[in-house]
Amino acid sequence: MSHSRRQPLPNPLTVPERALPDLPLRQALRFEPGRPLADFDPAATPGYPGRGKSDAAELTDLIRPALDQWQERLFADGKERGSAANSVLVVLQGLDTAGKGGIVRHVFGLFDPQGLRLASFKQPTPKELSHHFLWRIRRQLPEPGLIGVFDRSHYEDVLVVRVDQLVPADQLDRHYDEINRFEAELVDQGTRLIKCFLNVSPEEQKRRLLARLTDPAKWWKYSTNDVKVRAKWPAYQEAYQVALDRCDQPAAPWYVIPSDRKWYRNWAVAMLLLEELDDLAPTWPAPDYDVAAELARVRSS
Amino acid sequence: MSHSRRQPLPNPLTVPERALPDLPLRQALRFEPGRPLADFDPAATPGYPGRGKSDAAELTDLIRPALDQWQERLFADGKERGSAANSVLVVLQGLDTAGKGGIVRHVFGLFDPQGLRLASFKQPTPKELSHHFLWRIRRQLPEPGLIGVFDRSHYEDVLVVRVDQLVPADQLDRHYDEINRFEAELVDQGTRLIKCFLNVSPEEQKRRLLARLTDPAKWWKYSTNDVKVRAKWPAYQEAYQVALDRCDQPAAPWYVIPSDRKWYRNWAVAMLLLEELDDLAPTWPAPDYDVAAELARVRSS
Repeated sequence: MSHSRRQPLPNPLTVPERALPDLPLRQALRFEPGRPLADFDPAATPGYPGRGKSDAAELTDLIRPALDQWQERLFADGKERGSAANSVLVVLQGLDTAGKGGIVRHVFGLFDPQGLRLASFKQPTPKELSHHFLWRIRRQLPEPGLIGVFDRSHYEDVLVVRVDQLVPADQLDRHYDEINRFEAELVDQGTRLIKCFLNVSPEEQKRRLLARLTDPAKWWKYSTNDVKVRAKWPAYQEAYQVALDRCDQPAAPWYVIPSDRKWYRNWAVAMLLLEELDDLAPTWPAPDYDVAAELARVRSS
Repeated sequence: MSHSRRQPLPNPLTVPERALPDLPLRQALRFEPGRPLADFDPAATPGYPGRGKSDAAELTDLIRPALDQWQERLFADGKERGSAANSVLVVLQGLDTAGKGGIVRHVFGLFDPQGLRLASFKQPTPKELSHHFLWRIRRQLPEPGLIGVFDRSHYEDVLVVRVDQLVPADQLDRHYDEINRFEAELVDQGTRLIKCFLNVSPEEQKRRLLARLTDPAKWWKYSTNDVKVRAKWPAYQEAYQVALDRCDQPAAPWYVIPSDRKWYRNWAVAMLLLEELDDLAPTWPAPDYDVAAELARVRSS
């Protein structure tokens, strides 16, 4: 499919033209290795076909039936073909308040929970630390037919690990290559990777941290560690720059999601998913039984 | 809370009176041991406060904000208090086409996926069979703060196992007591159990099986085994009767959900969840830090 307005999605998954971006988001938001992250405006809204916040819910509703149908086909294909079926894995990375949780709620909340596989990666446990850093990641990969979401991921091992110098430099250096090999392997096995760097500005992060502290319903989301991490902003930007530069591959691309506007951020991730699913275009499985014979059996049952 | 129309939910979780049943569904749908399942009408709509299918979506939308808020509070409480927090576990049991998958999609799709823990129990694997029948169940229990959903459950070990005589009679007999002890232990640990028998009529099952066979988008949901199981209808009814009679406890109640009308079935499970959450009434955690001091830290960061 093309997302140009001249080539709408094929039936029966037609999305109204007015809900589609001019340029596919997979192009508009694609990171190019070497490009400074500082070039990306966290408040931009590339490709957004509407007016702004006021019609974001409506435009999301317009793509929801297609997302739903693709997901169900993917799921059905997984049931039918097992490990020969595809899966999708969305990697969410970003600093505190960038919106990982918000995307899980608002974007993945659009899907049938049955077809989702969520994983959230915190500080590694002692058991996890006793293994290779990819060990705990492999255990949480989406099964064929599922859409997986990683709230943080194996990239923590080149982000916090780099910033806080948790492993020797030569070991850190190997992590990038290991990640590239790991992701290439996933792609070979039929997983579509959508890696999202949620790009939030320090000013917006400050507003969100203050909002958490001034609303008792958000106190639980705040950690005293957040300010400590915030103080390392330049080091994290550098670590993200290196991670994106070294671990962007054609089949395992990074997208930079402008995340100062929550409505855009959510819409953009939903649209990236739609484009990926539309490209995969799973079909309903053929029956592995004789339909006419089964109809007769059920009728006489 | 009471669900009588005279005692609406407390703010801020007020649900409009017109969206609440006259009698709490936890009373209206409660199974009583000894009552024949044949007494329950699969097409009934007990407690439904609206007109019927035409306003089911609207009435569900009206309870959605309360469901959402309770879930987030439960989740926050789990983050804060760990194993001291509550969890909820919904057990879905019913014959093929009764609607286990439909409930996961339409009811649990209402929630933030982050707060859900789904588990689907198929034919046990050889590894699972080498363990006690509750082994695989324990591994899938919802963590504190989560809402768990079991699509089939430990009850399979007194349902298919009874009907197909997969274990000796004395061993089967012990399963009921083991289930009761297991569930009592879960309740002691803070889990609220909502056990739902999805009561579908043989006529409606036939219609749904035929619908699956006549729609290529549903072929994948049909298995040639479905008719074989359907032929054992009386044996399954007897097995369900014994399971409900023997494994209904005040703190681990069974509900009989009339399931011939999908819109009612989904609404009823959502309302049972609302009543349970409302009874738990989790509160936002108190901060484990000095709010004023943190506000100052963030402001100067």
